[in-house]
Amino acid sequence: MSFLNAPLQNDTFLRALMRQPTEYTPVWLMRQAGRYLPEYRDVRKKAGSFMALAKNPDFATEVTIQPLDRFKLDAAILFSDILTIPDAMGLGLHFEEGEGPKFERSLQTEDEILKLQVPDMAELTYVFEAVTQIRRTLNGRVPLIGFSGSPWTLACYMVKGGSSKDYRTVKTMVYKRPDLMHHILRINAQAVAHYLNAQIEAGAQAVMVFDSWGGVLADGAYQSFSLDYMRTVISLLKKEHNGITIPSIVFTKGGGLWLDQIADIGANAVGLDWTSNLGGAREKIGHKVALQGNLDPMALFADHEQIRQQVHALLDSFGKPSVNSGHVFNLGHGISQFTDPDAVAVLVDAVHEYSTLIRNK
Amino acid sequence: MSFLNAPLQNDTFLRALMRQPTEYTPVWLMRQAGRYLPEYRDVRKKAGSFMALAKNPDFATEVTIQPLDRFKLDAAILFSDILTIPDAMGLGLHFEEGEGPKFERSLQTEDEILKLQVPDMAELTYVFEAVTQIRRTLNGRVPLIGFSGSPWTLACYMVKGGSSKDYRTVKTMVYKRPDLMHHILRINAQAVAHYLNAQIEAGAQAVMVFDSWGGVLADGAYQSFSLDYMRTVISLLKKEHNGITIPSIVFTKGGGLWLDQIADIGANAVGLDWTSNLGGAREKIGHKVALQGNLDPMALFADHEQIRQQVHALLDSFGKPSVNSGHVFNLGHGISQFTDPDAVAVLVDAVHEYSTLIRNK
Repeated sequence: MSFLNAPLQNDTFLRALMRQPTEYTPVWLMRQAGRYLPEYRDVRKKAGSFMALAKNPDFATEVTIQPLDRFKLDAAILFSDILTIPDAMGLGLHFEEGEGPKFERSLQTEDEILKLQVPDMAELTYVFEAVTQIRRTLNGRVPLIGFSGSPWTLACYMVKGGSSKDYRTVKTMVYKRPDLMHHILRINAQAVAHYLNAQIEAGAQAVMVFDSWGGVLADGAYQSFSLDYMRTVISLLKKEHNGITIPSIVFTKGGGLWLDQIADIGANAVGLDWTSNLGGAREKIGHKVALQGNLDPMALFADHEQIRQQVHALLDSFGKPSVNSGHVFNLGHGISQFTDPDAVAVLVDAVHEYSTLIRNK
Repeated sequence: MSFLNAPLQNDTFLRALMRQPTEYTPVWLMRQAGRYLPEYRDVRKKAGSFMALAKNPDFATEVTIQPLDRFKLDAAILFSDILTIPDAMGLGLHFEEGEGPKFERSLQTEDEILKLQVPDMAELTYVFEAVTQIRRTLNGRVPLIGFSGSPWTLACYMVKGGSSKDYRTVKTMVYKRPDLMHHILRINAQAVAHYLNAQIEAGAQAVMVFDSWGGVLADGAYQSFSLDYMRTVISLLKKEHNGITIPSIVFTKGGGLWLDQIADIGANAVGLDWTSNLGGAREKIGHKVALQGNLDPMALFADHEQIRQQVHALLDSFGKPSVNSGHVFNLGHGISQFTDPDAVAVLVDAVHEYSTLIRNK
């Protein structure tokens, strides 16, 4: 029997995404493998650079598993970066110490934009190898999530000066040369779909699209320049692999105002940041999709008892799960590198304990 | 007759705030007096520093009037900073070239926080003198808006390290020491109310509360740590001066999800950033308050014809004004320093022309 057929010992996360009953609310954390863990920092040091870590399947596997060995998390997420696609397009992703991602080459001219192509997935073999190796190592412990940046979020980084404070460069393109921006986004959408499908083939059991920068767009522009392309991605995704359903999650940070529209693009679940009222969101769209979220990562800087209270309040806000659960507990954004790992343990245990309790009330 | 009694030649803005009929949609722009204007940069140079400019009533008057001499704007807004109150509390506001505001002293210890007091309004005489001098210079041309930062937004800057990327310091206080944060906010709310009332007495004909950072708070925390204190401020404001109604505007950037709650705190108008759907917002709360907004400032980087189209689309989204108008056109945030002044002229004229046209359709 292939390791890919190893029976899942914990499929709570997948069932929650499909709004099936669960015994408790599953939990994982965005960026759960990362700098707040000393064991991650050790591997990062050994690897030399972030990209050297991400591009080495052994290292990527090691850091993906690390948080599972500490906390009773209900899912693993591939350790990688949201910008691997533009890197494979030849833009040269790198990270400078203490700064965000940078590209060595970015799209500066119309000519460069028109030459852009969906990258050869062979350029991303290191990702798919990592996925397979993580699955082998997990051996059915919990499901593995694959992911990608959204077409719009990739574009923000690909266009020179994109991720500036006011998004002036990309927004100028949105307003002044929408044709060029749509050209980039069409290619990105194809690339993201191919990329996620290849992750599914390599062993990813759920996939998530991170639309980190959709929330900076104006109403109207968001729908045309981000949401529509995520809809394309979702429509192109494999819905099952080897007879097993592969659920999908979309997450637009700052997208709470567009929740009902996001729930309509065909994904199984929608991620929420901390500005949304979880109970209100369930009432509005919980009959269509599962919800993932949405504790403020900064709540983890409180005392343990205060963290428990925050967790209880969120679970109470979602309301008592009846037949369908449909809630995956998570933060509203990536965990801060300054978080005390002990706080994460308190969070994870509180989610499991309190969500079990309210199910049996 | 005192200049303060000079009859207003253009009260369109004030009538729109009170949802009375207007012949066209009034328009002003957040940060309309500012760095995108070469004549502003000249005065700024002469003054030596931002604070030297803001603290000199002659300079403040000059730059407040500048955009009115270029564009047919329907309101003037006092040139000042949102952080004058903590400066008057003794924290020492200054601006470093190319950076945001900084305080020389900030609240670092519990003791410092507990010693915090509502500042003597005499420390802010320069603001009130500027208000009076601007009113004298305007001589009834358009109404003058006074303003302040919201209690929460002031607190973000007052607490050491407050306006960091992830708001870690202030949010840690929110989650871990809510008692201390509430203490700061109670004092800030009193200070903001006194400050705005003194501006009204000096001649401000409308007042606006800028809650620039309310949108970073989680649902629940926003209501307790920002909205509740803005409600206090609004409740303490003079509703009229010398027999003339003084309307109020509240604006939480990123607050679109809480629109119905913001509309309930007693202000006459609510500002919207560009993520809100203007027509949807009118439908939801337009019977309670006027709406101000909400073009993406980056739309001004498009070609003139594209700017006109964006303006038309927003006015169409608000819908045909019937008996009550209730819309003040504005950007969804401050104008970018890189904006071409010609684009502003196109915007202002397009608002006036198209809004007149749709009223007569």
